[in-house]
Amino acid sequence: MAAPTVSSGYNTPDSQLESVVPVHPTAARREHAIAVQSENTSFTDEHITAKFVNRGTTVVVDNGKYIVTPTIEEYEFQTERKVSKTGLMMIGIGGNNGSTLSATILANRHQITWNTKNGLETPNYIGSLLRASTFRLGIDSTTGKDIHVPVSELLPMVHPNDLVLGGWDISAVPMEKAMTRSKVLDYDLQRQVAPYMALLGKPLPSIYYPDFIAANQEARADNVIPGQDKQAHLEHIRADIRKFKQDNELDRVIVFWTANTERFADIIPGVNDTADNLLNAIKTSHEEVSPSTIFAVAAILEGEPFVNGAPQNTFVPGAIELAEREKSFIGGDDLKSGQTKLKSVLAEFLVNAGIKPLSIASYNHLGNNDGHNLSAERQFRSKEISKSSVVDDMVAANRLLFKAPELNEKGSPKDKGEHPDHVVVIKYVPAVGDSKRAIDEYFSEIFCGGRSVINIFNECEADGSFVAGTEVINSLNRQRNALEAFLKACLGLEGSSDLLLETRLW
Amino acid sequence: MAAPTVSSGYNTPDSQLESVVPVHPTAARREHAIAVQSENTSFTDEHITAKFVNRGTTVVVDNGKYIVTPTIEEYEFQTERKVSKTGLMMIGIGGNNGSTLSATILANRHQITWNTKNGLETPNYIGSLLRASTFRLGIDSTTGKDIHVPVSELLPMVHPNDLVLGGWDISAVPMEKAMTRSKVLDYDLQRQVAPYMALLGKPLPSIYYPDFIAANQEARADNVIPGQDKQAHLEHIRADIRKFKQDNELDRVIVFWTANTERFADIIPGVNDTADNLLNAIKTSHEEVSPSTIFAVAAILEGEPFVNGAPQNTFVPGAIELAEREKSFIGGDDLKSGQTKLKSVLAEFLVNAGIKPLSIASYNHLGNNDGHNLSAERQFRSKEISKSSVVDDMVAANRLLFKAPELNEKGSPKDKGEHPDHVVVIKYVPAVGDSKRAIDEYFSEIFCGGRSVINIFNECEADGSFVAGTEVINSLNRQRNALEAFLKACLGLEGSSDLLLETRLW
Amino acid sequence: MAAPTVSSGYNTPDSQLESVVPVHPTAARREHAIAVQSENTSFTDEHITAKFVNRGTTVVVDNGKYIVTPTIEEYEFQTERKVSKTGLMMIGIGGNNGSTLSATILANRHQITWNTKNGLETPNYIGSLLRASTFRLGIDSTTGKDIHVPVSELLPMVHPNDLVLGGWDISAVPMEKAMTRSKVLDYDLQRQVAPYMALLGKPLPSIYYPDFIAANQEARADNVIPGQDKQAHLEHIRADIRKFKQDNELDRVIVFWTANTERFADIIPGVNDTADNLLNAIKTSHEEVSPSTIFAVAAILEGEPFVNGAPQNTFVPGAIELAEREKSFIGGDDLKSGQTKLKSVLAEFLVNAGIKPLSIASYNHLGNNDGHNLSAERQFRSKEISKSSVVDDMVAANRLLFKAPELNEKGSPKDKGEHPDHVVVIKYVPAVGDSKRAIDEYFSEIFCGGRSVINIFNECEADGSFVAGTEVINSLNRQRNALEAFLKACLGLEGSSDLLLETRLW
Amino acid sequence: MAAPTVSSGYNTPDSQLESVVPVHPTAARREHAIAVQSENTSFTDEHITAKFVNRGTTVVVDNGKYIVTPTIEEYEFQTERKVSKTGLMMIGIGGNNGSTLSATILANRHQITWNTKNGLETPNYIGSLLRASTFRLGIDSTTGKDIHVPVSELLPMVHPNDLVLGGWDISAVPMEKAMTRSKVLDYDLQRQVAPYMALLGKPLPSIYYPDFIAANQEARADNVIPGQDKQAHLEHIRADIRKFKQDNELDRVIVFWTANTERFADIIPGVNDTADNLLNAIKTSHEEVSPSTIFAVAAILEGEPFVNGAPQNTFVPGAIELAEREKSFIGGDDLKSGQTKLKSVLAEFLVNAGIKPLSIASYNHLGNNDGHNLSAERQFRSKEISKSSVVDDMVAANRLLFKAPELNEKGSPKDKGEHPDHVVVIKYVPAVGDSKRAIDEYFSEIFCGGRSVINIFNECEADGSFVAGTEVINSLNRQRNALEAFLKACLGLEGSSDLLLETRLW
Repeated sequence: MAAPTVSSGYNTPDSQLESVVPVHPTAARREHAIAVQSENTSFTDEHITAKFVNRGTTVVVDNGKYIVTPTIEEYEFQTERKVSKTGLMMIGIGGNNGSTLSATILANRHQITWNTKNGLETPNYIGSLLRASTFRLGIDSTTGKDIHVPVSELLPMVHPNDLVLGGWDISAVPMEKAMTRSKVLDYDLQRQVAPYMALLGKPLPSIYYPDFIAANQEARADNVIPGQDKQAHLEHIRADIRKFKQDNELDRVIVFWTANTERFADIIPGVNDTADNLLNAIKTSHEEVSPSTIFAVAAILEGEPFVNGAPQNTFVPGAIELAEREKSFIGGDDLKSGQTKLKSVLAEFLVNAGIKPLSIASYNHLGNNDGHNLSAERQFRSKEISKSSVVDDMVAANRLLFKAPELNEKGSPKDKGEHPDHVVVIKYVPAVGDSKRAIDEYFSEIFCGGRSVINIFNECEADGSFVAGTEVINSLNRQRNALEAFLKACLGLEGSSDLLLETRLW
Repeated sequence: MAAPTVSSGYNTPDSQLESVVPVHPTAARREHAIAVQSENTSFTDEHITAKFVNRGTTVVVDNGKYIVTPTIEEYEFQTERKVSKTGLMMIGIGGNNGSTLSATILANRHQITWNTKNGLETPNYIGSLLRASTFRLGIDSTTGKDIHVPVSELLPMVHPNDLVLGGWDISAVPMEKAMTRSKVLDYDLQRQVAPYMALLGKPLPSIYYPDFIAANQEARADNVIPGQDKQAHLEHIRADIRKFKQDNELDRVIVFWTANTERFADIIPGVNDTADNLLNAIKTSHEEVSPSTIFAVAAILEGEPFVNGAPQNTFVPGAIELAEREKSFIGGDDLKSGQTKLKSVLAEFLVNAGIKPLSIASYNHLGNNDGHNLSAERQFRSKEISKSSVVDDMVAANRLLFKAPELNEKGSPKDKGEHPDHVVVIKYVPAVGDSKRAIDEYFSEIFCGGRSVINIFNECEADGSFVAGTEVINSLNRQRNALEAFLKACLGLEGSSDLLLETRLW
Repeated sequence: MAAPTVSSGYNTPDSQLESVVPVHPTAARREHAIAVQSENTSFTDEHITAKFVNRGTTVVVDNGKYIVTPTIEEYEFQTERKVSKTGLMMIGIGGNNGSTLSATILANRHQITWNTKNGLETPNYIGSLLRASTFRLGIDSTTGKDIHVPVSELLPMVHPNDLVLGGWDISAVPMEKAMTRSKVLDYDLQRQVAPYMALLGKPLPSIYYPDFIAANQEARADNVIPGQDKQAHLEHIRADIRKFKQDNELDRVIVFWTANTERFADIIPGVNDTADNLLNAIKTSHEEVSPSTIFAVAAILEGEPFVNGAPQNTFVPGAIELAEREKSFIGGDDLKSGQTKLKSVLAEFLVNAGIKPLSIASYNHLGNNDGHNLSAERQFRSKEISKSSVVDDMVAANRLLFKAPELNEKGSPKDKGEHPDHVVVIKYVPAVGDSKRAIDEYFSEIFCGGRSVINIFNECEADGSFVAGTEVINSLNRQRNALEAFLKACLGLEGSSDLLLETRLW
Repeated sequence: MAAPTVSSGYNTPDSQLESVVPVHPTAARREHAIAVQSENTSFTDEHITAKFVNRGTTVVVDNGKYIVTPTIEEYEFQTERKVSKTGLMMIGIGGNNGSTLSATILANRHQITWNTKNGLETPNYIGSLLRASTFRLGIDSTTGKDIHVPVSELLPMVHPNDLVLGGWDISAVPMEKAMTRSKVLDYDLQRQVAPYMALLGKPLPSIYYPDFIAANQEARADNVIPGQDKQAHLEHIRADIRKFKQDNELDRVIVFWTANTERFADIIPGVNDTADNLLNAIKTSHEEVSPSTIFAVAAILEGEPFVNGAPQNTFVPGAIELAEREKSFIGGDDLKSGQTKLKSVLAEFLVNAGIKPLSIASYNHLGNNDGHNLSAERQFRSKEISKSSVVDDMVAANRLLFKAPELNEKGSPKDKGEHPDHVVVIKYVPAVGDSKRAIDEYFSEIFCGGRSVINIFNECEADGSFVAGTEVINSLNRQRNALEAFLKACLGLEGSSDLLLETRLW
């Protein structure tokens, strides 16, 4: 059979060559090796089953007094021990995020080493929370010291090398050329991984509604699903997902938005406020339904998880209701760049130390296509909102430093209360290419009129964690604690106040 | 009675003037207003008594397998509802830390407002974890939202305004002049607080062993306890503490090292390795017993808490054993400056995100007497060790990114294993005065050969948290979580994996 | 006589107190003490008269060959030895620039010392090129070493302490309150200089055309010359200048725009393209004549110099023609802030070293009223153009690094040729007050693909050189060289080539 | 003839391949195309002969008066029109500077293009003042605009591509491996230039006196001229130079120290204070004669120019006297890195603007062998002195801002007078490799107590201007002006005062 002209979604063959260079620890395969000796946890060949007690607190505020009541809730978690065969379908697979993630996985899968002026480099998953960081498991019974294990070993998980890759893009540039266009990976790595990238073919045609992304992206849009019928587009995408799953004999497909930031969609009663209204709005091709929402709905209806890696409001209320109804997993509100994550960490550090940030000024520039798209006003607004909100819950949690908003007659806040001045600027500077520059100034009040200034310059050649943030909590520490507590709960282990089971969607 | 020439330890009179400017929220007095409805917690007029279950995990590592066993331990905590009348005796009270902390407390106590070019300023405790930050108490039973309360309100606690101030200094400069010399607080605040500072008189004579601090401090040493007899010095200090307590009718005195950094003391078997050896070494005036250790021993023997605010090894093994034996509270290994705290936060952020710091270069300069003292080689070493160790446990907890040390025949590590290059520089630059400059570069590996550079410039006019770090964990988040869990445990509330009760000294 | 309600322009009385603190060298008075022994220079009691030969070069480019011809031109310069009694009338005298400059001069005139936490401060003219920098005069005939003299001593010059102060402002706030509002000077200095500032009274009413400055300035505009008749406004200002000169018995009045940045005026044929058209446009109150142009025309017609301290195009072609016709001195295109000057210096440094800047990203934020005004789009454009042009002539002078523009059929450039990416951002961040933050990144190509990144954080509490830049050359070094050459030419001294042949070894 | 084992000094063959990629403008060859029409300048086929009048000023200071006398001196300069065949012998050719300079020249000579992730790169001489910057030649007689020409075209000059390369190194690693070890150039460039580097063979054995460089360099020292006899070493080097010249039929050989920084040599009367003493000290193998001084003496005695590219005091008084006696050209006191040059520029900018730098703190770290050597105390001192002196003459030239030193009884200064605090730190951080990090803080006083802080982060992957600084003037602008004036003087053209009288309005 001749190579299909639209072959995206085909997997690369296994490497026939045993590399002599050792596999990097973050890419190594290890058996699941944790056993729990407890009446709450049982292990069979198929499952790990664990009882878990979630301990919380409710508060009644009465006349300035806090009446606190501890609460207890029991859960049972069951985890399959056999890992699913999993596909990863990226929207915007030919962009910087998509092509770099694909090439990284292929480099790891085929253990491609490459040369730089600093010597020989080995592929790895450094920067991945799952593959390259650890959790404390407990205390060594003989030495009394902490035992840490890789996050990926707490429970049976898919190894990223095993993900079957595919996806859509509005640009028809084949994947090996898309990688070159992205200018992210070292040349000598690109040279060697290119033949494997070429096997991925060119991306599947994608949905292009010019109103939602920057006008400067139009030149790339040569690979779009024809027509204006949004219902047809939805079905096209659902068919793509099903075919990909079938062709590759997959148990599960993760649909992952790695494409450009869209403008915010307006939330319109009757259009996208409920599940049914949203489905109907798609049927009638309502103009306020964005491409990312259509992809999300497609994944939800196919029963596959959808992860959103850009800051737009893909998850309009109707999409969330639909996911709840269909018991589908959806999540993510941006691939937080280093700067935003760092801001979350620093704002939390300052406020938790009782220091009052007076102003935060964040300046960014970058020269890749992401920057080009964000140089348009409306797409920038999506990003700006995402980056600004990151300090909101820290501020709201400390009314010693920041005055609470005054309330109107109905008891609702008149505004968002006292706040640090917060400026977010993103500029497109082609010269710096894919090297992102983020500059932040934190200007804070310490005690008795003292002032502190923290200036941060962050230069990052390539980033892109593939765990997206949740929409509820911006504190990175609390997010991480929650993940730790959840994975441990699946083993029947307790130990985190950050679990917040009661606020999660299932 | 005439004003005593050595009057340190006398308290300023209450303000007779009701200020019309409102008290800053971080300085306000509020009643303890938390009630817990649970069979585990009981409230009487005198006490809050709480049962608490500490849930942990032990691990046996066997042939690459982890055998995990949950553990449970029950505690009962009793907290007095009436707050003690408390004194604060600072060693080095005439230095920058001591005089600024004193002036800040007096400005708050007497609600002294002052003018700057930016307008009228109000005294406050911004920057104090206890007074200016909050903990999440639980979930509002009506709104479902988080309820946060000031840390200082979780349990009955001393208000800093009520601390009776006193202390020692090797310099006889009276307190109002010491404040001027420090060049920390705004001139118009200094002008008004000076009369109150003057009432503190001049510091009590202190212990001066030239070998332990920089030679450049000798010019200041005009207020020292005479003689070379260390046992006599110990008894002198103990008598000072008792007299201060009696004169001011105090329930408790906190002894707080705010003085210059000493060089490290050598740990010598037979000298400072056990409680008895240490007491004996003091009796024989052994040269390796430092002033800070004598102050710590004095506090321990008087049954009063001792807090160490400088990075030297005050707590030699003999001092720790003595504290355990006497059931005295000792703690602290430095007044962590902004840079060190920030480094802890950032190193944890990077490593927890699976990013590999390759090098951390920290440059500091400052122009105050602290900088002058640290410009001496041996004193700098104490600070350098303190600042360097801050990343050690993060690195040790992640063996995916950093290779573990090889073991020798006995199974002990040959070295400390793979590590980021870590440079710490402190320079004395008189021109910048008390304005501290801290510059850090973090150079990290992200994925597939990518690199990230974070440069931080931190300028801080005046800092000095008065909660010192513990010696066990450098992670600021884990420290804070532990404090939260502990305070909540005293209320019978569960909810933190960071409590680590089993590793604490009591 | 009762204090006039509109008293601006009145001078403060001489200090009756001889201060015991020595005058700062930058504020000291010194006699003119330079004598030139040369047939080209003659000194009388009234004049210094000097012949000067200007040596230049003309080039004919012919078929890739350069035919170079040295040229010579003779000049005679005459300088009055008696310094004029000079007034300084500021437009926007109540703003940050105007009130701070006034207070600085008064503090110096009355030798007002003040306290800060760092000790006693003395008034001075640090930051003034004229008062605080030096030029090399020549080589000491005995030691062979360079002799440097203060710039202000090369020729007889007005001492700033002797300037009679006055001016206009659209805000009627009296000068001592305007100083407070500006939040620039230390509180203890403000406190003492306030009575002298009060003697300046309130500013004269000014011209307010809302279309030219930001809408957010409207709240301040309570002191404006009534009516819409621009000819009447012109005559009003001319009368103000004449009265000020007469009342204070002045030889000369410098009119100095220190007010907010206006939007650019459109250049319209028939309106502001010639002197006569401009005068006529004022007569007919044409909407495109800006307040600053009216002030400039008033000064020109009164024969007094006009200095422009903001980046708008005050000097429309008609204004320049008028100044030439009337032989009036006009100059200045901005009070270059530290950042812009630094950018000029760095861009010149890089390009002169053969290094190629690829991108320059400049981010600024400030919290004073200047920032507030510039937060409006059109006013920002004026500033942006001013800040961007600063690298243009450096780039144009090096066609090895930057490709020249292609030419169209008529031989004119199609565009401005190859250029660094250049981003200028100015944000209004009230929290930082008058403390300006300027952050620049220079990203450059060195050799064979190497890259250099220079990041600059500049924090400046108060700046404002009162020598405005010229409109022809952005190179700060060349500006300074030109000033040096001109002042020396007035003494009959020729250039300073830095060749130093006399000190070389051969 | 078989390839010699010690073949250094052999030239690579001409490229036989005409590259299709155009030559970069900084590497292009252009004919000398400037003709001067003046009676002072004459052009023959062999020479350009120019009369030049040097105009200076002498000053007599008498009782506070300056008596200034203009001076005039006439010179005649003769320049050969035919460019010499020139060799470049580097000491330390196998180090970072030497191997990178060699590879850059070879890449340019053979027009080797290479790939990076950003696309195809072309070899060039960006960063070279001679090849990549321009001087203003004069005013275009038709347009009235400035005409700029490349510095390298003012006079006939050697093209760097034509330099015949050779040199010495204490390490025997062949040149293509030395390049790899240096980790400076992109991998794909290294790969292609390696065969040409291989033709350079291995470096000639060099002089190794362990006392003069860091102990950590000993491991590299496997290629040293045997014995302890310094006179024999001198003759060995002289023979190397003569042989290189003869073998390659060269007119001239430039001897260039690109090796590691040595410690300072003590200046000892009778040893290195005069030419004869120095020659005698070499004969007697005095321990205080450094390797670099022996190389310098060898070049002087061979009549060839010597350029010093490291900050040690190679040019002891006896060496300078010898050069004068032999009329040899010697120069250079360091390959100024970007930071030092930038510091010179910024210090000059501040002081020339009348701003007073209070402190300058410079922190550097780098991970190459230069950093390794400088991590030793005595070698660092040489560098520190070099970096510190850069602001000295700026300060000395402005006694308004900095108090002059007091004089002792003999009229000599007691100290160096008022000065900014100046800190220089260099640290070895292997992780950053050849990427140099330079961080500077400039803390300055502006007017009336105002403060300005400028922080600079400079990251530079590869630098190395090959024009060394002079020892007299640190001002980079004045150095450049001097070069411009000198080159123009050789054409009979006089200075460039920037006065631009012809473009002024009067």
